[in-house]
Amino acid sequence: MSQALLTDWVATLIDGLVRGGAADLVISPGSRSTPLALAAARHPQARIWMHYDERSAGFFALGMARARRAPVVLLCTSGTAAANYWPAVAEAHLARVPLILLTADRPHELRDNGAPQTIDQVAMYAGNTRWASDLPEPTEGLLPYVQSLVARAIAAARGAPAGPVHLNCPLREPLLPDRSCLESLFADPSPLPQVQVAPRRADAQQIADLAALLQTAERGLIVCGPQDDPALAPAAAQLAERLGWPLLADPISQVRCGSHVHELVIGGYDAFLRDERFAARYRPDLVLRLGAMPTAKPLLQFLTRSPQPRQIVVDGGAGWREPTSLAVQHLFADEIDLCLRLAAALPASQPDPWSAAWVEAERLTQTVIAEHLRGQEQISEPGIFAQLARILPANATLFAANSMPIRDLDTFFPPSETPLRLLGNRGANGIDGLTSTALGLAAGGYGPVVFVTGDLSFFHDSNGLLAAKLHALSATIVLINNDGGGIFSFLPQASESDQFETLFGTPHGLQFEPLAACYGANYTRAENWATFRHGVLRGVDGAGLHIVEVRTERTRNVHDHRAIWPLVVERLERAGLR
Amino acid sequence: MSQALLTDWVATLIDGLVRGGAADLVISPGSRSTPLALAAARHPQARIWMHYDERSAGFFALGMARARRAPVVLLCTSGTAAANYWPAVAEAHLARVPLILLTADRPHELRDNGAPQTIDQVAMYAGNTRWASDLPEPTEGLLPYVQSLVARAIAAARGAPAGPVHLNCPLREPLLPDRSCLESLFADPSPLPQVQVAPRRADAQQIADLAALLQTAERGLIVCGPQDDPALAPAAAQLAERLGWPLLADPISQVRCGSHVHELVIGGYDAFLRDERFAARYRPDLVLRLGAMPTAKPLLQFLTRSPQPRQIVVDGGAGWREPTSLAVQHLFADEIDLCLRLAAALPASQPDPWSAAWVEAERLTQTVIAEHLRGQEQISEPGIFAQLARILPANATLFAANSMPIRDLDTFFPPSETPLRLLGNRGANGIDGLTSTALGLAAGGYGPVVFVTGDLSFFHDSNGLLAAKLHALSATIVLINNDGGGIFSFLPQASESDQFETLFGTPHGLQFEPLAACYGANYTRAENWATFRHGVLRGVDGAGLHIVEVRTERTRNVHDHRAIWPLVVERLERAGLR
Repeated sequence: MSQALLTDWVATLIDGLVRGGAADLVISPGSRSTPLALAAARHPQARIWMHYDERSAGFFALGMARARRAPVVLLCTSGTAAANYWPAVAEAHLARVPLILLTADRPHELRDNGAPQTIDQVAMYAGNTRWASDLPEPTEGLLPYVQSLVARAIAAARGAPAGPVHLNCPLREPLLPDRSCLESLFADPSPLPQVQVAPRRADAQQIADLAALLQTAERGLIVCGPQDDPALAPAAAQLAERLGWPLLADPISQVRCGSHVHELVIGGYDAFLRDERFAARYRPDLVLRLGAMPTAKPLLQFLTRSPQPRQIVVDGGAGWREPTSLAVQHLFADEIDLCLRLAAALPASQPDPWSAAWVEAERLTQTVIAEHLRGQEQISEPGIFAQLARILPANATLFAANSMPIRDLDTFFPPSETPLRLLGNRGANGIDGLTSTALGLAAGGYGPVVFVTGDLSFFHDSNGLLAAKLHALSATIVLINNDGGGIFSFLPQASESDQFETLFGTPHGLQFEPLAACYGANYTRAENWATFRHGVLRGVDGAGLHIVEVRTERTRNVHDHRAIWPLVVERLERAGLR
Repeated sequence: MSQALLTDWVATLIDGLVRGGAADLVISPGSRSTPLALAAARHPQARIWMHYDERSAGFFALGMARARRAPVVLLCTSGTAAANYWPAVAEAHLARVPLILLTADRPHELRDNGAPQTIDQVAMYAGNTRWASDLPEPTEGLLPYVQSLVARAIAAARGAPAGPVHLNCPLREPLLPDRSCLESLFADPSPLPQVQVAPRRADAQQIADLAALLQTAERGLIVCGPQDDPALAPAAAQLAERLGWPLLADPISQVRCGSHVHELVIGGYDAFLRDERFAARYRPDLVLRLGAMPTAKPLLQFLTRSPQPRQIVVDGGAGWREPTSLAVQHLFADEIDLCLRLAAALPASQPDPWSAAWVEAERLTQTVIAEHLRGQEQISEPGIFAQLARILPANATLFAANSMPIRDLDTFFPPSETPLRLLGNRGANGIDGLTSTALGLAAGGYGPVVFVTGDLSFFHDSNGLLAAKLHALSATIVLINNDGGGIFSFLPQASESDQFETLFGTPHGLQFEPLAACYGANYTRAENWATFRHGVLRGVDGAGLHIVEVRTERTRNVHDHRAIWPLVVERLERAGLR
């Protein structure tokens, strides 16, 4: 293979990606990927983000792609480097985030015969990609094919649904492209193939039928689960207002915060639907669902109560977002378009006792929780999100780790007209890669970013901190350290006292202040709410990485949560809402 | 599903593994895996190793399985937890290490429909397993099937070749087994299915033919590449002695160190085969190869020189260990058996100039390198392994990271009669999971363990350090910190000065002393050879985790290496060996 062919090949690949809309490349160092990395670094429009741990790099790209709302490229060398992307690829697949995995590989003659740094990379992400292609080695005459392949990869990554695409690129030695040729190729770009993808759009009859159906409901609900598109929030809020229906807004639905929020936007359901009597009394007859399945288990149980309500699950990505095997009606159509056209087709709603009860339950729940938490001087896990709700400035991003933080965000972060981005990784709900995702959001322009994490998640992706150091990113990490896995204390095995601490409590005794020092991060230990708020605001207003550690205790945390539910019930009782 | 059935099911699974020979279980915390974890923790013969990062856990189990020379079980919850094992699974597949991946999964009705913490786990390790089975949910009447399946899994993991086996275990809620039933089930074990696997064994005619062929050779060589079986070393050394052939011993062939070592065991070939004139003059006519492809590139180039020697590649694991597409003769037969029977069939050899030249080249090379390095006061990367060769006690394990350390081990660690285990991860040659592998070796009984690593590998698996803290393991880490990727300075892209440092040099500026503090490790900064030796010996003789950091400089390191090759050539020249 000539150097000229290698140069043309990698230049065509990189140029197609960058000009095709995937201009951010997260690169991990390696030898086999040398020509691709050099081409990327020389492309005038490319943005290069080095990261030295591919697992963290994968999640960093995932966060960045969500903030950019565009595909981000991951580039690595051959071998287990590519295997380290697997967790992020699974998350991107399920959370519908566009990624393009550009993995350098050994050429065919060095595969599966003991050559160094060679694993079977073909189709290695199994069913987690929208599309996967094992490219040929650089070949004369195939540059148009490469352009076409890259355009197809970008279109497949964008979806709908969006997701990961894998381009496996075998390359033979020598691996050095011609530097000056690269520059002249990039300076004189050729036209690229274009792909236009029209969304799934309900037809006029479907809209009319659905509008008629919605009007027959006496006790309607809209439920919006996790989804990233900020444009869905005002559309859903408008439809809820038009229908006069409560809109149950998952914390990471993008509906809970923003100028679209009105009194029908409900965020306290995780608390008040735990009340068996409220849940039994206020059963819906029709539910319109948007987004993925919501985070709150009480809501899931509420929706699966017998007799089940009629449910319509809308998904422009044509997925099967229904783990409860209910007899739902699936409608694969663009959600925003559907909400707006339904709202336009419906008459204005009249006040009714059904929605008034939900609005009142919401008001009472938020009030009693806020009063209760405000009365606590000692730092508690439930109080953290209530404090953040008070102090986060407009346009901040609050990213919650899985396990406890996302659940506490759900329960303790009330709807607000302040425009905030609330986000989580709810594709596969892993405790891996969360710091990297948060830093990717910051790198992608979603700052100021505040990331709330437990200690196990923070430990799991400690390497992710490197991105902040390498790229001088600004972010604030609220580290809730209860020395182990707090969520298990809520599960039945908590009674297995002799094995519980080893298998589930999982204490580690790690010191995180030195870890912060290793990465050059600012570190604050928050002992009370004043230092907590001060530490967070210093991070939000300042530059660099700030870690605010809060120490809590797992057993007490269970009590802190369980103390709240009777207060909500009591308030509902007094209001005659159960 | 009844609690009794769940209890029987998980008890049968765990009991079959533990009594079947896989008594070490490396467990990561999670909810879906609860019944399996509780059963394991209650099994009287099981050894439980908690680890909170599944990627590190995977490599920790890999190291332990190598030390135990038995399968080790990995147990995790559903979702991306299992995806984090992928790099270790790829390494275990290629390095032939027995692992059993026991991944809890959601039951069928919760798959691929938006249920939380659910990814497609069926066949997720693609072609990297010896066997993979997606179990049914616990089912009445199928306990004999579970016993049979576990016996099969263990046999498949043991090989030959050994490797990973994946058992995917869907479980329905509720997830708590009955504690007292578990105990009585384990107290009264039932007979297990047995699997006996006979090795591939060359027949008498094959031995006779091969013995005759070897006797026709005038310039024979034995090359032993990476392999773990300590019993192969004396067998190979005996055959070499019988034939009077040089035995080129890869650093991690288990041949380079031990009481079997005699003057025909050659370790300096990485240095002296760089000499084009020696390599041209001393071309073999017959090469018998054992183990995987050797580490040294000069040896690979030597073997592929034209005219190529006749080569016989022996592999009891029936793999295709031949990336050079040479016209070799593969013999799939047990290596130890073959060496011993060939030695018995051959007459004693006579001294000859061919082997005398190799022995002399080896002696001169080791002498000139030792003299050169002994003369250097300043710490250098080549000097590190020479120092270690002087001070490591018998039965120590020296584990070398990939990239530079394994190459320096190859070049600068001379053959020795001191019994030492020299090991590396040369399946996929990744820079991931190396600290965890080293600690797994220590946990598996291969101590005292000294692990030599560069800073990028050390960073990549920083989470692996947790195992030492959780399980009070003893090990010594020699951390060669040149602030980036030292190996790239030897590659052609080192001339790409404007992009080189960003893409390949990859400096990070990380402070590792605070990282040691985070994990409670002892830390020494070695500024000279005396403090280096003192630090290493303190770790080798003491308890706990010791990190000895050596700072070097990447550009100088290239000079340190390149200064040596002319000295070797000069010595060969003076001896008339080129």
